[in-house]
Amino acid sequence: MNNMVLPKGLFLNVKTTAETIDILCNHFLPSLLFESIPILEANNRVLAQDVYSQIDVPNFNRSTMDGYGLNARDTFGASSSMPAYLNIAGDVLMGETTHLRLKSGEAARIPTGGMLPENANAVVMIEYTHEIDNQTLEVQKPVGVWENTVCIGQDIKKQNLLFQAGRLLRAYEIGALAAIGQTRVDVYQRLRVGIISTGDEIVPAHALPDKGQVRDINSLVIASKVLELGAVPNFYGIVQDRLELIHDAIKACVSQNDVVLICGGSSVGARDFVIDALSSMGETLVHGVAMKPGKPTIVAKIEEKPVIGLPGHPASTTIVFLVLVQPLLAHLQHTTLSPWYLTAITSRNIPSQPGREDYVRVRTRDMNQEAQMSAEGIQSQLTISASSNTKYLAEPVFGSSGLIRPIFEANGLIKIPIDCEGLDEGEEVRVMLM
Amino acid sequence: MNNMVLPKGLFLNVKTTAETIDILCNHFLPSLLFESIPILEANNRVLAQDVYSQIDVPNFNRSTMDGYGLNARDTFGASSSMPAYLNIAGDVLMGETTHLRLKSGEAARIPTGGMLPENANAVVMIEYTHEIDNQTLEVQKPVGVWENTVCIGQDIKKQNLLFQAGRLLRAYEIGALAAIGQTRVDVYQRLRVGIISTGDEIVPAHALPDKGQVRDINSLVIASKVLELGAVPNFYGIVQDRLELIHDAIKACVSQNDVVLICGGSSVGARDFVIDALSSMGETLVHGVAMKPGKPTIVAKIEEKPVIGLPGHPASTTIVFLVLVQPLLAHLQHTTLSPWYLTAITSRNIPSQPGREDYVRVRTRDMNQEAQMSAEGIQSQLTISASSNTKYLAEPVFGSSGLIRPIFEANGLIKIPIDCEGLDEGEEVRVMLM
Repeated sequence: MNNMVLPKGLFLNVKTTAETIDILCNHFLPSLLFESIPILEANNRVLAQDVYSQIDVPNFNRSTMDGYGLNARDTFGASSSMPAYLNIAGDVLMGETTHLRLKSGEAARIPTGGMLPENANAVVMIEYTHEIDNQTLEVQKPVGVWENTVCIGQDIKKQNLLFQAGRLLRAYEIGALAAIGQTRVDVYQRLRVGIISTGDEIVPAHALPDKGQVRDINSLVIASKVLELGAVPNFYGIVQDRLELIHDAIKACVSQNDVVLICGGSSVGARDFVIDALSSMGETLVHGVAMKPGKPTIVAKIEEKPVIGLPGHPASTTIVFLVLVQPLLAHLQHTTLSPWYLTAITSRNIPSQPGREDYVRVRTRDMNQEAQMSAEGIQSQLTISASSNTKYLAEPVFGSSGLIRPIFEANGLIKIPIDCEGLDEGEEVRVMLM
Repeated sequence: MNNMVLPKGLFLNVKTTAETIDILCNHFLPSLLFESIPILEANNRVLAQDVYSQIDVPNFNRSTMDGYGLNARDTFGASSSMPAYLNIAGDVLMGETTHLRLKSGEAARIPTGGMLPENANAVVMIEYTHEIDNQTLEVQKPVGVWENTVCIGQDIKKQNLLFQAGRLLRAYEIGALAAIGQTRVDVYQRLRVGIISTGDEIVPAHALPDKGQVRDINSLVIASKVLELGAVPNFYGIVQDRLELIHDAIKACVSQNDVVLICGGSSVGARDFVIDALSSMGETLVHGVAMKPGKPTIVAKIEEKPVIGLPGHPASTTIVFLVLVQPLLAHLQHTTLSPWYLTAITSRNIPSQPGREDYVRVRTRDMNQEAQMSAEGIQSQLTISASSNTKYLAEPVFGSSGLIRPIFEANGLIKIPIDCEGLDEGEEVRVMLM
């Protein structure tokens, strides 16, 4: 028996990563249904409906200081040598609707958060006042109109659009939803991501591999990233390198998921059946992407759903996921990915071959933080400094794409553009956090 | 009835943020118990035990290419004009232990991921070979020793320390745990964070506020951030401004949680009972922090547990949480916080008053991305560029700390140091992502 692996062909029509993302985002439209969930569960979920406020927040003019509510006009010109004198009309009670109505020259005692009486348009801080007696207030400093107050609707206006559908919800948006009394929110349902591992040599993580076998790493890494993105990973096991088995696994997976990720078998070798299976089931949109690692990537469309063939080396799987699949998943979740980039300095020359984008794993270190830590002890690492004259250092973590160590030793990714022959030591680069 | 709010005192011993974090980390020791959980649930959890590998990964010498396993020596000097000729000894089967044992001048067909036969120490790629007949291989290029292979233990070495306790687990560490067959992992239990809201004016988010009342935003924002950090928020409701009620709530909360956060009532006004309650129950370590917003912050120690009094304005609560509480929670979870900072350019002058750290909420925009988007369309925003000559722009989001809008409109925080009078337009700053 000859199981030799002659290449069946080369990649005939290699796409760039930008072209591939374009294809992914144009061929596959987000179509998730809504679900209503408690706001406390909505962090990292995507808003499915525009949110309008039914109320003004606050719904009364509120003091932001302990002091006296009054008409600002009555304090104009006041100073410590020439104070203004006002009559104390009463007290605003915390948490209660006040029915006080100030006349000219009157003030009301008011706590932080208290409701301004009618005709009051400012609060003078207690520090700038003195009660001569129970009814007479001395004010030593003028206040401006609406100073030390929050006006009706100043935070959130009734009937106005608060958040647009598609907004990724964070703790802060959740606070705003609480403010308008919305304790449940319509978000898109979680995206279902089917994951298939392929390879005769792959055994599950719980099994003991014989010599010649390796444990399935990729599906765990991918599933964990999928969870991070707020989606649901569904496992379809490890499928042997046989066309009909791969075909059947993909078929089941497509019918039960919104997107399918296949780890391994995506190349052009005699044992790589994924492309054949996909071609027989639907349309192949991309086979071969000008990136390293990750060239043998497949994008196919089956039953209108995206099926991505990821190369099986752990580094390839991971980097193709980060670079191509993450934006797709965000897109299918009705939002866009906004990765943030650190600015770092390369610690050494990083060679690259033109004609493909190189994705270099790097260990990024905060030189500022390390300098402070050695100088002042642990606490300073936790504080934030506005100064940016000390930089991050990006040290490439080299290693075969068959290894997992360079992945877990790295915390960032540098893209070296397709037409670039490499980066110099000390060059300023953008690092995408992994 | 006079419920006036005369200051009972000033902050007598204001601490810096660095001093406060120091106090937090030195007075409170992490003491969480372990729990064993499936690795797929371990993302964002903290490893509780050192992990040693019981096996070599891989546990056999593995080919990283489709080609021929051989002894590198047999290819030395080979070229297309002067090829080397080897005898084909057989096939390595994918996923199986090979019992082939090469003699000098022999090669074995081997697929990517296949096991090298005994005496093979390199793989020549199929592209540089030609099978003259079924038994004779022509090699047109020399290979180096161990070229196109991954050796036994090259990724992870048996008996070696793989991960140290205290490591924050990501998808990549989870992959490595899968690689060594560890499908469950010991992590620290989730930190229990008790949350109390105080204030006579506060009503729950589901209630309709009267004029004079506001909905509880803070406990939702805090709870959502607590969940993000992998901890468990426990709510203790909204407590009215009465010493004995606050006392009782804190007592219950301390007994059932690892850390207690109290929103509101932390200042020195006549209605601010939190400091009195805390002083009567334990030791007050900090009252007053030189930061804005956030000055009226309390750190107390009750039954050896940290109890933090957060000022009640939404911006104050949020920023004190980000600056002081986050590092504490990381510390109590047996790890340290490593926030990453963007380098950005300020869009305008940002004034600051010396004597306190100013925390300015900013909206950070990627000018590079926006330029690309307008020039090339949506897809380019999703790609990573190594070039960093275009920067982020940080636009301050000003607004009273009583408002929530400036919080949800911001995505970052700039610290203006205590001795600084402000930042100039165009100044380079570090932005902590919110």
